Amino acid sequence: MPAQGAAPSPTDAPARVALRRARTLVEPALLHWVDRLPGELRRIARYHFGWNDAAGAPDQGLVGKALRPALVLAAAEACGGRAEETLPPAVAVELVHNFSLLHDDILDGDTTRRHRATAWTVFGSPGALLTGDALLSHAFRVLADEGSERAAAAVRALADATTLLVEGEHTDVGFESRETVPLQACLSMSERKTAELLACSCELGALWAGAAPDRVAALRRFGHHLGLGFQLADDLLGIWGDPALTGKPAGADLAARKKSLPVAAALAADGAAARRLAALYRPVDPDGPPETADQLAELADLVERAGGRGWAERAAEEHAERAATALAESGATGPAAEALAGLAALACRRDT
Amino acid sequence: MPAQGAAPSPTDAPARVALRRARTLVEPALLHWVDRLPGELRRIARYHFGWNDAAGAPDQGLVGKALRPALVLAAAEACGGRAEETLPPAVAVELVHNFSLLHDDILDGDTTRRHRATAWTVFGSPGALLTGDALLSHAFRVLADEGSERAAAAVRALADATTLLVEGEHTDVGFESRETVPLQACLSMSERKTAELLACSCELGALWAGAAPDRVAALRRFGHHLGLGFQLADDLLGIWGDPALTGKPAGADLAARKKSLPVAAALAADGAAARRLAALYRPVDPDGPPETADQLAELADLVERAGGRGWAERAAEEHAERAATALAESGATGPAAEALAGLAALACRRDT
Repeated sequence: MPAQGAAPSPTDAPARVALRRARTLVEPALLHWVDRLPGELRRIARYHFGWNDAAGAPDQGLVGKALRPALVLAAAEACGGRAEETLPPAVAVELVHNFSLLHDDILDGDTTRRHRATAWTVFGSPGALLTGDALLSHAFRVLADEGSERAAAAVRALADATTLLVEGEHTDVGFESRETVPLQACLSMSERKTAELLACSCELGALWAGAAPDRVAALRRFGHHLGLGFQLADDLLGIWGDPALTGKPAGADLAARKKSLPVAAALAADGAAARRLAALYRPVDPDGPPETADQLAELADLVERAGGRGWAERAAEEHAERAATALAESGATGPAAEALAGLAALACRRDT
Repeated sequence: MPAQGAAPSPTDAPARVALRRARTLVEPALLHWVDRLPGELRRIARYHFGWNDAAGAPDQGLVGKALRPALVLAAAEACGGRAEETLPPAVAVELVHNFSLLHDDILDGDTTRRHRATAWTVFGSPGALLTGDALLSHAFRVLADEGSERAAAAVRALADATTLLVEGEHTDVGFESRETVPLQACLSMSERKTAELLACSCELGALWAGAAPDRVAALRRFGHHLGLGFQLADDLLGIWGDPALTGKPAGADLAARKKSLPVAAALAADGAAARRLAALYRPVDPDGPPETADQLAELADLVERAGGRGWAERAAEEHAERAATALAESGATGPAAEALAGLAALACRRDT
């Protein structure tokens, strides 16, 4: 099977520029706000974001690709706003995203993220949990720093998105103990856990720039489809991605029996491959020997033969197209629209 | 040793009325917002607040005394506001308070609260943790429901208070693994973990009523001293309280080697009792036999003989007096001022 991964394309350039620029603009503002956290929480947050190592010494700097801030800034510019004046929502969505990573890593027991030890493994679960709490309240603090009506609207939008994100995470945790999960339930969970904050990022940029409601709504739809494409691509990489690029061992999602979208689609299909997959895709004895590479390759092959891979690839393309349609409906033109189109293309290949 | 507890007093009447009225006003508004939570999070929140039992059937209704909402409403009325128009901040502080209870109970491993099984024991830690997250983001959603400048100011105040509260909780968790904790560090932790949200409750009421900054600040100070008195009284009850009233077994705080304020004060003293207490107040072997009632009574006696009880009682009185001074400085008069004075008196006896 060919490895799923990033094919560099010349049309990626505007998106790459937008990501780099978002990082450059947002990193100092984010650090400024993180440094307003008290005591030990600041130390844990500085570690989690990548500015410090576990001992508190300088580290590589902001890890992560700043996709959400880039969407905020480009959406604002697509509505006539200026990126430099849109830093509060760009910082706020990155704070919420990282709040959710801190809590997810505890709940999932994940020990590495972005090739670094997760915060709870370094500072303990209480420290990571409470630092997540502080990042969440800080996100609203940043938005409300100016006492404007747009600040209140942004707080409402971000709070609603966060509640749905958290509910999506709760649903996802519940999936672990279920033998099968209907495809529709998987999609609905991804809409909340992943797409909601990406949709909200676009919404906040447009809101902050003072865009009309239908424009805000169109950019929100754009972010929603980008988000679903992003999750589909992420799930494809979780099975067929190159471990050197994903930072996860090959077949890790299959070994963990994750109910990812390609798997749910395969299990929902008819035929021998789907039946064989269903028979094999049962909880693994955690005390038993790890599965061999051949066993994991068979699972991946069954997902593919049952149609899960093809379905997910087509669905990712479809969401990329629907994102493009929504972008056109937003009336965005010029460099910011090009950046948004490029960000959607990257996201739907999970190349961010 | 005499039991520490509530001595009913005729001057309590205005405070009792304020608490009952706050519950009556706030309960439907709080339920309205909790019912906007999605799916399972709503079920967990409804259980936690007391509206449903673990099976989802109707339960006793809102548990807890609604001290924070009562402070919000009375502070607003003391500044010329109307309680009925001050429900958003009253609901918001109760949401933040319960967010912190959900997370604290997980971190402390507490299995009962308000005579009911804690949410994490019923629904699992992930469910309780994520419901806490949702209550926190919901609190800001409630405040920002109106797009006014006061809403943004309230978001800022509540977010800052929440960050400090969370930091206080983190410091408190860290105390568990320390053999001794300086009294000043204990006080500073209580200022953040307990007093901050009570101070913020008074601040938000005044802010919402459009009070002048010096008046807001005076009511904030009032809440701060009320909060410290509340914590001191709580710590006294944790050692000398009547188990029938506190709902905790006698000596539970001592058995857990909690670094409460009376203990920290006793350990900071000179003399034979302090030295003997220091020698005994070492981590308990969790696999060893539980301490006898006599052993716990000796610890309580040593705290008292080393001066910890007297210090804490005087400190609680002093904070009650400083709260009264701040209340006078706020210029509050009339029934709302009486209610606030009464709430401070109740809180500093931990009779709420």
